[in-house]
Amino acid sequence: MKKLSVFILVVSLLINAAGVFADEGMWTFDNLPLKQWKERYGFEPTQEWIDHIRLSSLRFEGGSASFVSPDGLIITNQHVASGQLAKLSTKDRDLVKNGFYAPTRADELKTPDMEANVLVSFENVTDRVQSAVKAGATDKAANEQRKAAIAGIEKESTDKTGLKSEVISFYSGGEYWLYRFKKYTDIRLVFAPEESMAAFGGDYDNFTYPRHDLDITFLRAYENGQPAKTEHYLKWSAAGPNDGEFVIAAGNPGSTARLLTVAQLKYQRDVGNPLQQKVWTLRRDALAEYAKRGDEQRRQASGGIRSLNNSLKRLAGQQEGLLNPRNFARKEAEEKALKDGLAKKPELEKLYAPAWAEIEKAYAELPKMANRLAFSNLASSRLATIAQQLVRYSEEIKKPNDQRYDEFRDSRLESFKLGLLSPAPIYPELEESALTTWLEEAKRTLGPNDPFIKAALGEADTAEVVRRAVSETKLKDVAERKALLDGGADAIAKSTDPMITLARRVEPVVRELRAWNEEKIASVESSAGEKIAKARFAVYGRTIAPDANFNLRVAYGRVKGYEEDTTLVPYKTTFYGLYDRAAGFNETAPWGLTERWRNARTKLDLATPLNFVYSADTIGGMSGSPIINRNGEFVGINFDSNLQKLSNRYWYIEEEEGSRAVGVHSAGIVEALRKVYDAEALANELIGK
Amino acid sequence: MKKLSVFILVVSLLINAAGVFADEGMWTFDNLPLKQWKERYGFEPTQEWIDHIRLSSLRFEGGSASFVSPDGLIITNQHVASGQLAKLSTKDRDLVKNGFYAPTRADELKTPDMEANVLVSFENVTDRVQSAVKAGATDKAANEQRKAAIAGIEKESTDKTGLKSEVISFYSGGEYWLYRFKKYTDIRLVFAPEESMAAFGGDYDNFTYPRHDLDITFLRAYENGQPAKTEHYLKWSAAGPNDGEFVIAAGNPGSTARLLTVAQLKYQRDVGNPLQQKVWTLRRDALAEYAKRGDEQRRQASGGIRSLNNSLKRLAGQQEGLLNPRNFARKEAEEKALKDGLAKKPELEKLYAPAWAEIEKAYAELPKMANRLAFSNLASSRLATIAQQLVRYSEEIKKPNDQRYDEFRDSRLESFKLGLLSPAPIYPELEESALTTWLEEAKRTLGPNDPFIKAALGEADTAEVVRRAVSETKLKDVAERKALLDGGADAIAKSTDPMITLARRVEPVVRELRAWNEEKIASVESSAGEKIAKARFAVYGRTIAPDANFNLRVAYGRVKGYEEDTTLVPYKTTFYGLYDRAAGFNETAPWGLTERWRNARTKLDLATPLNFVYSADTIGGMSGSPIINRNGEFVGINFDSNLQKLSNRYWYIEEEEGSRAVGVHSAGIVEALRKVYDAEALANELIGK
Repeated sequence: MKKLSVFILVVSLLINAAGVFADEGMWTFDNLPLKQWKERYGFEPTQEWIDHIRLSSLRFEGGSASFVSPDGLIITNQHVASGQLAKLSTKDRDLVKNGFYAPTRADELKTPDMEANVLVSFENVTDRVQSAVKAGATDKAANEQRKAAIAGIEKESTDKTGLKSEVISFYSGGEYWLYRFKKYTDIRLVFAPEESMAAFGGDYDNFTYPRHDLDITFLRAYENGQPAKTEHYLKWSAAGPNDGEFVIAAGNPGSTARLLTVAQLKYQRDVGNPLQQKVWTLRRDALAEYAKRGDEQRRQASGGIRSLNNSLKRLAGQQEGLLNPRNFARKEAEEKALKDGLAKKPELEKLYAPAWAEIEKAYAELPKMANRLAFSNLASSRLATIAQQLVRYSEEIKKPNDQRYDEFRDSRLESFKLGLLSPAPIYPELEESALTTWLEEAKRTLGPNDPFIKAALGEADTAEVVRRAVSETKLKDVAERKALLDGGADAIAKSTDPMITLARRVEPVVRELRAWNEEKIASVESSAGEKIAKARFAVYGRTIAPDANFNLRVAYGRVKGYEEDTTLVPYKTTFYGLYDRAAGFNETAPWGLTERWRNARTKLDLATPLNFVYSADTIGGMSGSPIINRNGEFVGINFDSNLQKLSNRYWYIEEEEGSRAVGVHSAGIVEALRKVYDAEALANELIGK
Repeated sequence: MKKLSVFILVVSLLINAAGVFADEGMWTFDNLPLKQWKERYGFEPTQEWIDHIRLSSLRFEGGSASFVSPDGLIITNQHVASGQLAKLSTKDRDLVKNGFYAPTRADELKTPDMEANVLVSFENVTDRVQSAVKAGATDKAANEQRKAAIAGIEKESTDKTGLKSEVISFYSGGEYWLYRFKKYTDIRLVFAPEESMAAFGGDYDNFTYPRHDLDITFLRAYENGQPAKTEHYLKWSAAGPNDGEFVIAAGNPGSTARLLTVAQLKYQRDVGNPLQQKVWTLRRDALAEYAKRGDEQRRQASGGIRSLNNSLKRLAGQQEGLLNPRNFARKEAEEKALKDGLAKKPELEKLYAPAWAEIEKAYAELPKMANRLAFSNLASSRLATIAQQLVRYSEEIKKPNDQRYDEFRDSRLESFKLGLLSPAPIYPELEESALTTWLEEAKRTLGPNDPFIKAALGEADTAEVVRRAVSETKLKDVAERKALLDGGADAIAKSTDPMITLARRVEPVVRELRAWNEEKIASVESSAGEKIAKARFAVYGRTIAPDANFNLRVAYGRVKGYEEDTTLVPYKTTFYGLYDRAAGFNETAPWGLTERWRNARTKLDLATPLNFVYSADTIGGMSGSPIINRNGEFVGINFDSNLQKLSNRYWYIEEEEGSRAVGVHSAGIVEALRKVYDAEALANELIGK
């Protein structure tokens, strides 16, 4: 990634006049950067074009996707679907390792608990939410009043439309929007490649480019037992994108932190990120230890390991960005510029300027609570999580809708139950190993007298508590969960299931911590965040995109290579490159080839593009986003970013610095389906034959 | 090149126990690192093995080579031979652009002025040289006494053996060795690839890796009109090197500066390198301007442009290394450690410790002379250089052998005349353009009253002086040069050739500057350098290799990939990678493919290795060095280093930092010769069929 900064001699072939503009932002559909598109790319989409893109786009848990045929065919990344692939796998049928193809619809496999959401309408409800806060309310009271208003709006919408309805905060509370989603809950698996090809190069090549990954999975949405008739789907581009071509990516970026205050960023840098790194490393290492026990254990743990490695590598890049003093100085300068701009409007300054100090004051309390907040949970075990959900549900469901925790509001219960009652397999040996390691480390970190540790373990031996809970719990059985769900608070109170009793013991501590966080941090962030957002609107207008929050956005840019190490990295890789890299490592893992790929070598047109890079402003959660040309055609699927882009959680990184999103090329997908997988029917469905 | 330094997660597959050792040094044949080879690689070569390697190795002007058949067949890099390829080219036969192959010996083309040297013996003459200095001599007198002694030793050897004999200084004068060379002066061209394949990726990919260059040329040494019978040649390894394999490279590293004092390095950093960069850029830009005039002009200038771009890119890396404060602090610490070690031997300290201050004092004078030293020459023109050589020769040849400039000593006259009387083509239009630009910039830099400028141009118009000199000179004619050479001082004095008169006018100024440099800098460096070398021997013994000086050395290491950007770079590339990179750029220059390469795609075994990296400590001048396995077989040819290695002029860079030499793989060479060039006879000669 290094460039020779002294006497630099290499003149880029690629930078042209348009390159001086920053294609920044993950934009909501109510505020697309139409002006920039017109000015920079001469592109003026119709409203119909825009609606069509939105209605062809999907949100999954943890990723994005799109419809690519009128019969409900969906494409996403293998790494987005891999949790479902694992749930569909057994000791003897490993869909993650070996992949899957259903030549006919009868062969398609129903995923246990996958839900897809399409954003069908949206509405600005900022006034309703903000005006619900009574004059003079404390931050805590204001927070409760807003939440009640939000619950009311959601319920009203659900009742009226039957659609999944969520009120979402943008710009740290500067705006609130009601989003309505069409849900698909019968999602079936059509095709997945072997993981060694979906993630060719493994953790090494992750977040790097040039890249050679076939990170795709095809699924199909069903309704009433039939393939869904999807009027809105993206037509497949057989040729794929050209060098320099304008493209957009539509998907659900998970989280950015570009509008955070300097105080919040400092906390992330000095406490939050190192702690997060510790937690994830602990969990990854526990899984890696478990995986050493044997092939079946490795299969069970591999998805979790891959996912945590991915998170850890991204976090390392983010933290490196924050630790760069020049980057940090830029954030300080931005904050100062906003404050200076605000100072020119004295009346607004009086209202909004205190917000920064309020956040700083609240965050001053956070470090001493950080370990408790991070370690007082049972999230490393699925069984324990189920138990906690049941215990919590039984309490919350008794309350009026607008006073419940967000995740138990009426509008979300259906999705909640889909997950809770999923028949996906659970591996007790893995559960026991992960939970034991977790609680041991929590005890080491928090000390034996910590309330959570005392509640969870008392004086007992950690391994023994966990062993009994995992071995004796009946929660592995979906019917048992259903009974407890339906039985309500009484059933929970009477249960002697040792996982339920563990969850019951820690519940008061967990609730107390959640309440502390709501009162001391979240409510301050909402109130102060709203002020800062209003200050920003007053000074700059609505010219920047809100921070990402796992809702549908559009990023845009151009397909183009970049400079690195004094040379140029081309915009695309080909199948030639795949075989070169495999051969370079003598086909040792994670660059090994499966038999079918070795055999397909002579059948493939090796010059077919496999992956490509483009300059759109994307981030995690946009995995699986369709990459779309100005004709509205699917030209590729987003699956990663290169290293140069890793710290873009905190700021946009100019395309001149080589930051790029990485996609799988539409032509490469069809070539592989045909020549490697003999998936002719699927390929034909894609190209509309 | 960037690594994630925070939370680094990727564990290298490649670093093993042996990797913790530094394979440092370009070693002379009298002091090979046999102990390290034995300890680290379990390799104990016989003296016969060592002699065989030495006698199979060749030195060319500007590069290295080796014999690879018993019939005088030589392999070197295309970029080492490209000057000769250009000299053999005409407007209608462009051997640089299109390459060349002689299917039979009768087709082989005699190069105009190529000389190859084989080091046949060597002898330590340190005592004889150092004892020639009389007690109490000034630095200047000591310098003259040493030079006289050296001239005497060389003459004595030449008279006795008939071999080219050179006394060479090592360790800044700490040692002197008499080297004797067998010369080959009838060198014929057998094969060269098109330059677009020899330098695939051009200046962009230069000094980078992964790489895909077929940077080779085959030549043949002739004696008495017949292919030379070369008893010592390297057997060709059809398989080439394996991952992790121990290899050596034998060649002629041009220059390193690792034993310089801090004062000398500071001069390089602050004055020397920036000035050098200015001079090379000026010459490169002048050629690039000239190349714009048309295809033929581009052909004439392309070799010079490529060579200067290469030098400039390397210089940029070196300067970046020097500008890194951490690197510089290490050099300061090394110097301090040596001084501290010396302080423990008070008697030696008294003798040697003043050396550092002497060099610092001498270098304090250098900046104000630097522009004059850099610009007072006519080197940008070949005709002007010939004129200067004739003028200088006529003066020097009158003196006793031991008082002449080094390059006119008896032992070197034959090589001098080979170059001077070369029939290689000269392009007057190019000469005029380059010399005019040069003198105009010299005048701008030095001012019109500078002695060199006044001598060269007086009050006349620069363009007019050059135009006349180039158009009217008869030096384009080899017979004319020969006549002036034989005519001696009289013929020179009487000549009215305007290039000769230009050279005559500037000669006193050039001599004055050379004398200044000898007295104020070089003689101090010799005397002080000898002291520092003795101090170093006293403190550390003879455990480090002397700085490179374009004589035969051996570097060693392992074939191995490295970490970059969180992933691994494999030890080899394949033909797959070549076609991938060409396709990635849609075959645009400098990644275009010629017709024959496009056609050969389906014939080639694309998995054949093309280039590879290894960890030996090499530097410019080792281009063309054979890479040799422990069986003494040729496994590849060195042609470049990666960026990570660029600043190794000033210090060794550990293999853990990813510094690597880059070679062409022996298997790839044979595959390309057979499948792309139909050079079956040549391929068979290589593999001994």
